[in-house]
Amino acid sequence: MIAVKYDGRLQVQEVPMPRPQSHEALIRVKLAGICNTDIEIIRGYMGFTGILGHEFVGVVEACEDATWIGRRVVGEINIGCDRCSACLKGLQRHCPHRSVLGILNKDGAMAEYVTLPVKNLHAVPDSVSDQQAVFTEPLAAACEIAEQVHLQPGTEALVIGDGKLGLLIAQVLKHFGLRVSLLGKHENKLQLARKWGIIATMDEKTLDPHFPMVVEATGSPSAFDLAIRKTQPRGKMILKSTYAGNLTTNLAPVVIHEIEVVGSRCGRFEPAMELLRGGYIDVISLITERFPLEKAAAAFEKAQMPGVLKILLETNSE
Amino acid sequence: MIAVKYDGRLQVQEVPMPRPQSHEALIRVKLAGICNTDIEIIRGYMGFTGILGHEFVGVVEACEDATWIGRRVVGEINIGCDRCSACLKGLQRHCPHRSVLGILNKDGAMAEYVTLPVKNLHAVPDSVSDQQAVFTEPLAAACEIAEQVHLQPGTEALVIGDGKLGLLIAQVLKHFGLRVSLLGKHENKLQLARKWGIIATMDEKTLDPHFPMVVEATGSPSAFDLAIRKTQPRGKMILKSTYAGNLTTNLAPVVIHEIEVVGSRCGRFEPAMELLRGGYIDVISLITERFPLEKAAAAFEKAQMPGVLKILLETNSE
Repeated sequence: MIAVKYDGRLQVQEVPMPRPQSHEALIRVKLAGICNTDIEIIRGYMGFTGILGHEFVGVVEACEDATWIGRRVVGEINIGCDRCSACLKGLQRHCPHRSVLGILNKDGAMAEYVTLPVKNLHAVPDSVSDQQAVFTEPLAAACEIAEQVHLQPGTEALVIGDGKLGLLIAQVLKHFGLRVSLLGKHENKLQLARKWGIIATMDEKTLDPHFPMVVEATGSPSAFDLAIRKTQPRGKMILKSTYAGNLTTNLAPVVIHEIEVVGSRCGRFEPAMELLRGGYIDVISLITERFPLEKAAAAFEKAQMPGVLKILLETNSE
Repeated sequence: MIAVKYDGRLQVQEVPMPRPQSHEALIRVKLAGICNTDIEIIRGYMGFTGILGHEFVGVVEACEDATWIGRRVVGEINIGCDRCSACLKGLQRHCPHRSVLGILNKDGAMAEYVTLPVKNLHAVPDSVSDQQAVFTEPLAAACEIAEQVHLQPGTEALVIGDGKLGLLIAQVLKHFGLRVSLLGKHENKLQLARKWGIIATMDEKTLDPHFPMVVEATGSPSAFDLAIRKTQPRGKMILKSTYAGNLTTNLAPVVIHEIEVVGSRCGRFEPAMELLRGGYIDVISLITERFPLEKAAAAFEKAQMPGVLKILLETNSE
């Protein structure tokens, strides 16, 4: 089969079909998304080598539990040991022994076929299209905020960063009844946000000086201080960006203003699928372009251009 | 009257008696405590000049509301504007226009007399001695954790730092039923903690690798990374230290492990007074030495020596 591999450089290769283990399903991939993490990986982050891709939708082709065969699925990306204390609390995504699809010790979904443990699969409802379903994983990361923090309707919230994740987070907070402002850098993305009823600006000065809730989703270390500065005393700052390197900052304002900095990463798929099923989140507008899997190199180039949102890879498997 | 002033250098001076405004009480100071913040001030932190001291117990000498006269009191140190949104929520200590006793735009309590708004006063119950009452302010800072975080009995907690604040926090957490470990650097302080039933050690390796709750109370920026490293995924790290300068750190673990970093500063006096009244917290063992107010210079020198805990200043006012 054809797959997008990274082993120091990115290439589309003919590779052997994956062989599912007894607890795994073999899935024919229909669509895979390019995430910023994939771009960081091809820049050397995580030290991952293998088949890339952790955002996908596909169809189960083979599985010991025959009820799965033929079903359209998406899949949780963290594969826990199921024995540690994190796994026993349902937090496989914090298992210290986990592998992660296309990120850590597990070949990913930018390929014609992928394998994943059956426990990781989620059936896609008929009312959710492939193009929507491929957003389940990034939308789950946005929904993770609602699992960590009590979202109260009417709260003024500021999202910093108008990338894919920032735009999904802004929509999720809006859906929960928060009054959302978005601070970004790209007019086309800010216009999208305005379409969703979000106050979107490039000019910090037009915003309130402080918010009870701020989400830092820029991916840039320089935004950390800004996010703290925009958080009101006793407010919450949700930190979504992982910075590759060190950050030099003054944490005194965190203590003086008693700010809660909440690190937030992946989320469960159920809440995200529920929002997609209800049609509450516009993910289709986030798709900039689709490329055939064979043209992954061009797709990755495009994904790194300014103003671009989601790039999808599609297989010819149908 | 005699007062301990800082105006670039520390000196005991004869100064005019303070004149209370109509909403203020005039308080004859009995005891005042030296806090690390005072030591930071005489090193130039905050840029404060004036009479030092924010930890005190005294007797009301003059007040428009005559029911206060003759009562033994302690006082909240933050004086809010009573009009801003923070003040209207009872968070005077986050008022952007606040003055702070002996720290910001308000002469402090290392003097024979001090003035404070009546609204800031708390009567001291007869069962609480002067030496206990003078700890109300630092104990309130320790109790603040219980106001910000749901303390659940049985939780394993690690306190890093065996200074006065660390020892008070360890006791408060123990009182709430947590299983407390203390990582410190001074054998005399660790022995004190052991007397209170706390696991106390200088050797990190003897501790569990991770805790669901970690309190960073060292005052040193180098302990931030250690505190994050000791916090388990989805755990809470309570940041009590204000570092004067910048800190260089990698915040990726905060996001990857979804840690909540909770900045924590001053607290309300009621919970602290309640714990003192119940006799639940041993503050007397934290007193290293008492000095007469006139010998404040020697007292400040002593307070900066390793292994020393609370230094008190006493007036001859009785």
